[in-house]
Amino acid sequence: MTQPITRRRWRLAATAAAIAATCLGATAFAQQPPSPALPTADQTDPVKLGWMVGSPPPADRVIRFADGSGYRFPQLRWSFSHFRQLVPTTGVSRGVGAPDPLPRAERPELDAITFTPLGGTAPMTWRQSFDANYTDGIVVLHRGKIVYERYAGALQPEGQHIAMSVTKSFFGLLGATLVAEGKLDENARVSQYVPELKDSAFGDATVRQLLDMRTGLQYSENYADPNAEIWAHTRAGNVMPRPPGYQGPQTFYEYLQTVRKDGEHGGQFAYRTINTDALGWVIRRATGQSIGDLLSERIWKKLGMEQDAYFTVDTVGNEFAGGGLNAGLRDLARFGELMRNDGRYRGQQIIPAAVVADIRSGGDKAAFPAAAYPTLPGWSYRNMWWVTNNAHGAYAARGIHGQLIYVDPKAEMVIARFASHPIAANSRIDPTSLPAFSAMAEHLMKLPR
Amino acid sequence: MTQPITRRRWRLAATAAAIAATCLGATAFAQQPPSPALPTADQTDPVKLGWMVGSPPPADRVIRFADGSGYRFPQLRWSFSHFRQLVPTTGVSRGVGAPDPLPRAERPELDAITFTPLGGTAPMTWRQSFDANYTDGIVVLHRGKIVYERYAGALQPEGQHIAMSVTKSFFGLLGATLVAEGKLDENARVSQYVPELKDSAFGDATVRQLLDMRTGLQYSENYADPNAEIWAHTRAGNVMPRPPGYQGPQTFYEYLQTVRKDGEHGGQFAYRTINTDALGWVIRRATGQSIGDLLSERIWKKLGMEQDAYFTVDTVGNEFAGGGLNAGLRDLARFGELMRNDGRYRGQQIIPAAVVADIRSGGDKAAFPAAAYPTLPGWSYRNMWWVTNNAHGAYAARGIHGQLIYVDPKAEMVIARFASHPIAANSRIDPTSLPAFSAMAEHLMKLPR
Repeated sequence: MTQPITRRRWRLAATAAAIAATCLGATAFAQQPPSPALPTADQTDPVKLGWMVGSPPPADRVIRFADGSGYRFPQLRWSFSHFRQLVPTTGVSRGVGAPDPLPRAERPELDAITFTPLGGTAPMTWRQSFDANYTDGIVVLHRGKIVYERYAGALQPEGQHIAMSVTKSFFGLLGATLVAEGKLDENARVSQYVPELKDSAFGDATVRQLLDMRTGLQYSENYADPNAEIWAHTRAGNVMPRPPGYQGPQTFYEYLQTVRKDGEHGGQFAYRTINTDALGWVIRRATGQSIGDLLSERIWKKLGMEQDAYFTVDTVGNEFAGGGLNAGLRDLARFGELMRNDGRYRGQQIIPAAVVADIRSGGDKAAFPAAAYPTLPGWSYRNMWWVTNNAHGAYAARGIHGQLIYVDPKAEMVIARFASHPIAANSRIDPTSLPAFSAMAEHLMKLPR
Repeated sequence: MTQPITRRRWRLAATAAAIAATCLGATAFAQQPPSPALPTADQTDPVKLGWMVGSPPPADRVIRFADGSGYRFPQLRWSFSHFRQLVPTTGVSRGVGAPDPLPRAERPELDAITFTPLGGTAPMTWRQSFDANYTDGIVVLHRGKIVYERYAGALQPEGQHIAMSVTKSFFGLLGATLVAEGKLDENARVSQYVPELKDSAFGDATVRQLLDMRTGLQYSENYADPNAEIWAHTRAGNVMPRPPGYQGPQTFYEYLQTVRKDGEHGGQFAYRTINTDALGWVIRRATGQSIGDLLSERIWKKLGMEQDAYFTVDTVGNEFAGGGLNAGLRDLARFGELMRNDGRYRGQQIIPAAVVADIRSGGDKAAFPAAAYPTLPGWSYRNMWWVTNNAHGAYAARGIHGQLIYVDPKAEMVIARFASHPIAANSRIDPTSLPAFSAMAEHLMKLPR
């Protein structure tokens, strides 16, 4: 990681990063140019392309953090399943007890489920959508059993994949849980917990405003703009490589203190990753625990997880609350199942049912449309979850490039997906995803009990 | 990791590294000055000192890879249990099945076992030796059951610690196993497997000479010498930070190709870490697997391990075969138990019994004394294991700063230890360790079956 980075290399890295737009947020569908000529999932299969294979790998098959190649497509199809090989990390322990395997009732007919993509006319099968979405792995649970599970490329059942902004929903949930337990006051100002943020934009925001991302911040996640604040944020957190001579903030928290206000808090929903990093800081101060330890204690050790998870960390060891969780796919599904069961798992109430109900019933619908997500009409955002407000009461954790947990209470269905789509914004991935989920739900609901 | 490193910082790092002598090898007792004024284990307890605690940690409690503080004493008392927070790593999967917990039969009287340290006159208890050795954790198995287990400082049962050169014994064992299976020819030259090493010192060495470290190499592990090759080796492998403007080898394998011959192969035993890295390269070529995957498949998934392990990796993802394994302590003990049972575990033959017998019977005794280990009279070295040749047939895996697996077949005893001693060389730690192990063995042998 400390090898010299030439200016040319740095430019390459920045360009690649801008193209891949890998980081954190979501940009509107309309901002993404149409790319009919994208190479297919099969053409970019990281195993077939031989990334990082060999002793040593051939020079043109090496992926490094320092030169930005880890974020370049198609290399990211490898690195999303191998983040710990690129950057320092910290573990989220499952404990040392026996895992609690998810029961299986696989149904081969599910690959043939057919739906029409949003904005399209030609039908597509579920199996075709697997490739269309550059899926690395997907698990469907129905009534708590695995009915569908498939992997591709660099991901295996025994392996961890970066969850990107799905990470946020874990901390929205834990933040709301701490509120329910009286350990965190949702009406308190952020500066009450983190005095260091007093003079930043976060100083007079409330914990609730963070949780629902209704803060007025000078911060752009427009990946096409090399001056967007997203770059400063991710360089500070060591999530993106730094240019030679970099003198900016050295950690996430140093960066957060530089954020300036833009407008008022409490207004429209505006998706900005730094809200979650600020929330992470608040949670650490409220609990005295690192958020990795909190996640281990509250979730990872409670659900019979199969694998440890891990976080990317900045140079002083702070986990990336906004997008740095890496986990096994079945464990992601297991967490979705906890949500579907209103916070209970195997008879134990892990998360207060009222917290799950609050997420499920959604945020202020009137605050959502200004964010202009063309694929999410009628949705809202609550406690860092995306809520469909549809007839099934479905809600989701979403991360760029296709990372997802989708909970459909009425259909008794949970979908967990890891992907490495060339385009970051889910608005490009939703058209071949959301109707597929609905079609799966309809099919599963018809099955006898 | 990519933050700028000033020249001053770099000098600090190099100095600290030289003092801590953290890397890989072992220097003779005689080379170490007596240090009666070393701060005690209690005074350097990393939890009490608060390293990396806080959100963020106070500036004087931050440990970073780039400035070398991870290798400085007492900081290393934290970093040895948190290596993945400093450098990129790759996982060694235990699989996703249920772990196989070691049965317990703890014996409180063991803390009072008394012995006389080598070269001393005053007796010491086992409990006192725990602190004297800056032990982070120790487990004693007797007849396969945990009779003693204790942790201190930054290590917990659920946690991984760097094994340093204990790593080598895993690959000596796997290398010898591949020989026994006919997948590796011990009489073949290294260049037959790795043509890239043809013009290096390794080119005309045999696999057997690597396995027993009887190669003639221009390579010093004298930590007091800033020009010793150990520094070039570890900088190349990204185990030690690089100075600004570093232009040397970028990977372990690039470095190995630069090693020149000094004397002939097949002569005296001379402990040099690069033999294991060269062996690792040979094993990768012979198996087509990364050595992390090989270790997972052959050992980690076979023994009901409690935790995944991990390796530090260089910038192209090659695991550090010479010293980069990090694992849970009980899993280290479980591996020792596999050895004690002649390669069988729970009725399954995991490693050929003949390979374990070959290690147990030791290497060429006449080749050992030249290495001048004052605490190891009569010992020998075989397949990267240290063999006592004592009446108990005991043998050990040893790593600097006190890392250890000690197998005593006659006493039906296995000891696994992680430590963070301020002095690297085990010759400083043996006096309060080896007689303690013998005393423990004598005590346990008297217990009724």
